[in-house]
Amino acid sequence: MGETPQIQVCQACSIIPKKTRFCNRCQRCFNKVLSKGSEDFYKCDISFLFKKKIHFIKIIEASDPGEEYVMSYNLRGLALIFNQEYFSPELRLPHRHGTKADKNNLLRRLYFSLSTHTHTHTLSLSPAVNWSHTEADCFLCVFLSHGENECVFARDGKLSIRDLTHTFKGDRCPSLVGKPKIFIFQACRGDKHDEPVSPIVDVVDCEVHANQLVVDAGTVHTLPAGADFLMCYSVAEGYFSHRETVNGSWYIQDLCEVLQEYGTRLEITEMMTLVNRRVSLRRVENCADRNAIGKKQVPCYTSMLTKKLYFRSKKL
Amino acid sequence: MGETPQIQVCQACSIIPKKTRFCNRCQRCFNKVLSKGSEDFYKCDISFLFKKKIHFIKIIEASDPGEEYVMSYNLRGLALIFNQEYFSPELRLPHRHGTKADKNNLLRRLYFSLSTHTHTHTLSLSPAVNWSHTEADCFLCVFLSHGENECVFARDGKLSIRDLTHTFKGDRCPSLVGKPKIFIFQACRGDKHDEPVSPIVDVVDCEVHANQLVVDAGTVHTLPAGADFLMCYSVAEGYFSHRETVNGSWYIQDLCEVLQEYGTRLEITEMMTLVNRRVSLRRVENCADRNAIGKKQVPCYTSMLTKKLYFRSKKL
Repeated sequence: MGETPQIQVCQACSIIPKKTRFCNRCQRCFNKVLSKGSEDFYKCDISFLFKKKIHFIKIIEASDPGEEYVMSYNLRGLALIFNQEYFSPELRLPHRHGTKADKNNLLRRLYFSLSTHTHTHTLSLSPAVNWSHTEADCFLCVFLSHGENECVFARDGKLSIRDLTHTFKGDRCPSLVGKPKIFIFQACRGDKHDEPVSPIVDVVDCEVHANQLVVDAGTVHTLPAGADFLMCYSVAEGYFSHRETVNGSWYIQDLCEVLQEYGTRLEITEMMTLVNRRVSLRRVENCADRNAIGKKQVPCYTSMLTKKLYFRSKKL
Repeated sequence: MGETPQIQVCQACSIIPKKTRFCNRCQRCFNKVLSKGSEDFYKCDISFLFKKKIHFIKIIEASDPGEEYVMSYNLRGLALIFNQEYFSPELRLPHRHGTKADKNNLLRRLYFSLSTHTHTHTLSLSPAVNWSHTEADCFLCVFLSHGENECVFARDGKLSIRDLTHTFKGDRCPSLVGKPKIFIFQACRGDKHDEPVSPIVDVVDCEVHANQLVVDAGTVHTLPAGADFLMCYSVAEGYFSHRETVNGSWYIQDLCEVLQEYGTRLEITEMMTLVNRRVSLRRVENCADRNAIGKKQVPCYTSMLTKKLYFRSKKL
């Protein structure tokens, strides 16, 4: 960490207060200073703070490559998981068998304030925007669904990824300004093995006992969303995405294993690079669709992060 | 680095030869072994190699997050720079004053086999595909031009980024299989200050002496391209891109400074995160377009890299 006062920008007023005191917790410069006896009081955006109790007055260097996001708030943050297994018949989208395994796998690995939404009709993120992120380190949103171009599917229809992510930009969600906003998409389009669901299908046909491999084509565009956003995609456009009907998708399986092993030690882009490698080393060994044998999957992530991001264990 | 034999995949046959010898230079398993007296000979895809002289027989671990791309070939690799300042009048695209500064800035920082193309009519990458990358660590391609959606502009027209990058995938460019392929786009669309060029414009109007700031809107989609690709964009969609008519673009200025300071020490995604921060800390202080005051720029990168990438100095 740099010790020399350097460029610093206030997230509220966009001023760069060189060599002034700056609260690294609320990412704003102190706009009032009071003295009472021998004690100094500063006012940042959250509250009056006693000199010795100010969360952080670390002067960060614009050029310090070791600079990290502040991850010492009271809460890790809110994690929304949209787990979509069934879709309305008119969409003619197949069931996503195995997605429950992905959801449960994630629930065991994430130390967030979890909010899961299963088979939901809408993918509205409004409650998350209105959630108070003031005491949170960051925000996480996971979509386990079908996708198409720049959209993901709710039960009844699709929603634009751009609209979903735009609601978390600084002007609409000020309590997340300067904090990491992470989106994970296990989203793929067609499903070449399961037949589209229709109301007359016998229920028994939908039960899955064996761990079948399902091959999808990656068609979700990897859209950036704004500063401090990290967008993680199970598959790059033009590659194939794979989901096992019992164990869950390759991507979420490998992501969870990496989180389990390195979650509190490695920087997030190091972990995502490792997930890229693990998934890309897999190949289809056995599949009902013979054309799929040997097919590969390549995940990707788009980073607009401006600092390093570690999920170190919080003190109890 | 891991010492235990683990999962390894041959880039040629897609076989995962557990605990077998594997050439980490050509990324292929040894498909023939000969013995001559007390010496063993192995054949990898490049040539017969004497046991003691095999480039690398490092057994990599699929799970080792410290794994790095091999960057000890004889050459760093080919770097193509497409520097487009002027465009055909029928395209009605403004001159890109300042792009020469970007090009010269890059030339001072890159220790590649450089090939620059200025005001070129086509952005054909065929010569680069046919170039022998066998002795190269990696490949770099920089576009300094206007862009639109998923295209960049040559002098006479636009070309799809997807088509440009697809020519470097494994099947079409086998000597780059398993090696990093890096694409950098300083590409933006409109230009709100310079008027579109037409043949009747007085040449004097095109001369630029003062260092003006030019604001463009980011409209290039950030497309992934395949395994081991890194796509770096000056601006995320929906943000503004800035170029100074004398000093060059913010993005290339900051990228070159980071390369100068940390190029041989930091991992590439660490450097790109620092570039994200430096550019996003800038704001428009003074601009002929008053609406531009205070505008911000947010770059992004999309990584399909599967290992860490360092550009450490080569031994002389």
